[in-house]
Amino acid sequence: METIESAEIKTPAGLNPCIQEGDLVLLWFERKEVSYMVEVQRGKRVSVHVGKPLLADDWIGREFGSKVACDHGEGYLLRPTMMDLMMKASRESGIIYPKDAAYLMLRAGIKSGSKVLEIGTGSGSLTMALAQQVAPNGSVWSYDRRTDLPKNAYKNVMRAGLSANVVFCQREAAEPFSETGFDVVTLDIPQPWDEVAVVKAALKNGGHVVSLNPTFNQVEKMAEALRREGFLWVDCVELLERPILAREGKTRPVQRMVSHTEFLVFGIKAG
Amino acid sequence: METIESAEIKTPAGLNPCIQEGDLVLLWFERKEVSYMVEVQRGKRVSVHVGKPLLADDWIGREFGSKVACDHGEGYLLRPTMMDLMMKASRESGIIYPKDAAYLMLRAGIKSGSKVLEIGTGSGSLTMALAQQVAPNGSVWSYDRRTDLPKNAYKNVMRAGLSANVVFCQREAAEPFSETGFDVVTLDIPQPWDEVAVVKAALKNGGHVVSLNPTFNQVEKMAEALRREGFLWVDCVELLERPILAREGKTRPVQRMVSHTEFLVFGIKAG
Amino acid sequence: METIESAEIKTPAGLNPCIQEGDLVLLWFERKEVSYMVEVQRGKRVSVHVGKPLLADDWIGREFGSKVACDHGEGYLLRPTMMDLMMKASRESGIIYPKDAAYLMLRAGIKSGSKVLEIGTGSGSLTMALAQQVAPNGSVWSYDRRTDLPKNAYKNVMRAGLSANVVFCQREAAEPFSETGFDVVTLDIPQPWDEVAVVKAALKNGGHVVSLNPTFNQVEKMAEALRREGFLWVDCVELLERPILAREGKTRPVQRMVSHTEFLVFGIKAG
Amino acid sequence: METIESAEIKTPAGLNPCIQEGDLVLLWFERKEVSYMVEVQRGKRVSVHVGKPLLADDWIGREFGSKVACDHGEGYLLRPTMMDLMMKASRESGIIYPKDAAYLMLRAGIKSGSKVLEIGTGSGSLTMALAQQVAPNGSVWSYDRRTDLPKNAYKNVMRAGLSANVVFCQREAAEPFSETGFDVVTLDIPQPWDEVAVVKAALKNGGHVVSLNPTFNQVEKMAEALRREGFLWVDCVELLERPILAREGKTRPVQRMVSHTEFLVFGIKAG
Repeated sequence: METIESAEIKTPAGLNPCIQEGDLVLLWFERKEVSYMVEVQRGKRVSVHVGKPLLADDWIGREFGSKVACDHGEGYLLRPTMMDLMMKASRESGIIYPKDAAYLMLRAGIKSGSKVLEIGTGSGSLTMALAQQVAPNGSVWSYDRRTDLPKNAYKNVMRAGLSANVVFCQREAAEPFSETGFDVVTLDIPQPWDEVAVVKAALKNGGHVVSLNPTFNQVEKMAEALRREGFLWVDCVELLERPILAREGKTRPVQRMVSHTEFLVFGIKAG
Repeated sequence: METIESAEIKTPAGLNPCIQEGDLVLLWFERKEVSYMVEVQRGKRVSVHVGKPLLADDWIGREFGSKVACDHGEGYLLRPTMMDLMMKASRESGIIYPKDAAYLMLRAGIKSGSKVLEIGTGSGSLTMALAQQVAPNGSVWSYDRRTDLPKNAYKNVMRAGLSANVVFCQREAAEPFSETGFDVVTLDIPQPWDEVAVVKAALKNGGHVVSLNPTFNQVEKMAEALRREGFLWVDCVELLERPILAREGKTRPVQRMVSHTEFLVFGIKAG
Repeated sequence: METIESAEIKTPAGLNPCIQEGDLVLLWFERKEVSYMVEVQRGKRVSVHVGKPLLADDWIGREFGSKVACDHGEGYLLRPTMMDLMMKASRESGIIYPKDAAYLMLRAGIKSGSKVLEIGTGSGSLTMALAQQVAPNGSVWSYDRRTDLPKNAYKNVMRAGLSANVVFCQREAAEPFSETGFDVVTLDIPQPWDEVAVVKAALKNGGHVVSLNPTFNQVEKMAEALRREGFLWVDCVELLERPILAREGKTRPVQRMVSHTEFLVFGIKAG
Repeated sequence: METIESAEIKTPAGLNPCIQEGDLVLLWFERKEVSYMVEVQRGKRVSVHVGKPLLADDWIGREFGSKVACDHGEGYLLRPTMMDLMMKASRESGIIYPKDAAYLMLRAGIKSGSKVLEIGTGSGSLTMALAQQVAPNGSVWSYDRRTDLPKNAYKNVMRAGLSANVVFCQREAAEPFSETGFDVVTLDIPQPWDEVAVVKAALKNGGHVVSLNPTFNQVEKMAEALRREGFLWVDCVELLERPILAREGKTRPVQRMVSHTEFLVFGIKAG
């Protein structure tokens, strides 16, 4: 074995292997299809579906992946990934699915250091994904018309330990943005075409816009609105996630699945 | 408009809006379905499909998104996103598609600061995605049996400006890894089940493994191998990306599409 | 308007527009998503989800499509199509879906006059489709290992008025068929590869075989078994049926759907 | 083995196993992915991709499925199924795909004896499927605005031996139909909503309508037009046909496929 090409790697350790106070833990059970998202605090008692509650104190200092015994069966203390955080977000409205968030971030160029405008905070599931993606030095500005929804989103973002990278703002429809110079704008609102002019003003030249909408009528209207405003490379796509049961001698796709979430419309602001 | 919740945002500027020497630029034409990935260097002449070459010197200092005139039609100087980098990677073998890379990174918890092991460097398309995702402080260790392939991958990673986060290594099949303590391991090799024991040894407890394979047979065998080694939450999925032609009055899915790339198998190392 | 080309059409009337005693009627309600498959008999009282039962006598002589009033809301007396007959078959095992039955019949050349062997009677949903397809002069020979299942299938076929074209037989696995010279053989059994030799013996030269199986393992094994026995054009396909909600201003695919039923393997017996 | 339930089967022979003059034969080669649709006539010489032409006289009296030697490799004389007839129809416009034709016929209740109105003859691929489906005693009335297209369709229908069940007519848009009392109406035209009133007049009560259109916009408009005219059970669906490469140890879906043909809108005329 030999190293062929290598830069000097500064911090080879990666993520902290041990659970600390304040961490989120996904308590996961193999037998029962249930899992719990727990913020680890001293003195906290964690109620599970069966038997006596568990004491979170015992988890501090243990490694992620560790087994915990409870009255019936065994659980595991997993480190939640963004997929878990999104699927288990406290919801007051629909969520954006991991498949859609992951794809749009990679395609629109959202990365560590990006400055992103999110229009339509919703339950904050996309907000979390964006915040983690731009960390440690980027920023997400998340706007919503409602003042009550962002509180739930804020709770989700706080719990995920991602609040340092997010500003939550309230704003009326089509109102200009005080902050500008964004690398990317995402829209998760029913009438995104009403925002195209202000979105354009808020974007850097060459910046990307992505709108998520469930109906073909919306994406058609949005795609045409972007073209009229001179956006480049206006394009639409949908992603389907098909679970496969991979088991010895009897592998097959699942028989029922989530078959539609959102269509994604992309465009780029010409300079 | 009012700010509801906000941390002190340190670096609101986001990405540099101007093209600098050494940057990659995607020269994109609206009319012709062609585009060119260009590393901007003084004195460089960029040949295009029609007419006189363009001079890259003229691009330095201009904003991304700017228009350039050429003999026939207009081009735009776009900032390549990871999607562009992957789709236009120099290839000596198949590439991993953006949809698959994006999804697996979000699901397996790869983020800024992660320490990732990639088994099967291939053309380096996934390597680039991983390197950008762990930046600025994480690391990707990419292993391949072949010594010639990584050179192409290294070229792709260099050109994308991501080499600071990648170590390329050569290694024989099933050979243990000198480096350990990884947060996530990805496998893009024909017989991933042969590597399960050494992968397990290289992972942190609670770490994630993802294998990408095109056939049902491979994912079935890999899923069972992971279960036998005690991996948790072993699961398989495929992603389909369906382009939609969103045009006024005649919106429809495209008539032919890429309908299969890879199945993804996931698992988590028990502590 | 002018007739360009025309043969002498013998029976232009098509199906009998009026409900007769013994007909099957689908009593369908617009408001409530319920419907009832009713065999029309004098004196029969039809219980519905709400209010007083309806009297089937009143339906005789009325046209299909007619409205009937009941205590709450309105129902319609529809002529069941094969899709309705299959989806509402009395089930003692899984059913074959209309999409799969329709496609395999058209692809394998099953038509009026065909002589078809069905291996695996099951609930009789495919038997009905085959029987209607070969009518009036063709025949379906349906074999099952179990003697109890065909009784349910027989009931379904009788009720659908298709029993004149079906012979139900009991037979052990891999036992040769007394009847031979079939145009097409369908298999809906767990281990179709065990039957390839006897299937070949029962088929005409140039005859088609189709096997329906839910797992990739089964279709791989069946495809290879057919190739080994010299079958031509061995090919596999799956069909997905995606419902679309087509509604003014908000058209989109449904959010959850049946995503997998069976893979279909086809082959042709060489002469 | 024992027969459990059986009607007296009148014509157990099924289709004629031997090739006769006037039959269509699909000359199919295993090695090369080419095949030829040949109308067998005495004295006919059949040119193939390599070597000397074949003499069709030699085929008369042989069984379907028989092997023929030619200069390079072996061919087989297959009996074309409706799938072959449709995929190899002489085309002057797009074709309807077998998956769509098969599904709509089963769902809308088209069967032996049905009387069907086809609006939009096109290349005649759906016409053939309908004609075979209603045989021997049903009828298909196929209307088109163009007088030239039906000649091609007529040729396809003639060649398939299905002309006894089809009447071809020319007609202007929205013109009423002289013939009425149809069991089912199919529409394959760009603006099917303009025909809803005359379609309703031409249908029996309880009759089914099916419209095939490629865009979301068309099916939305058609579905709403049907609802406004009082049609029942208005519903839309699309079918996807995914080929699977079933091969020992390396079974997977194909990598590129036809991903969209038509959406299908269904409705039933209330009495």
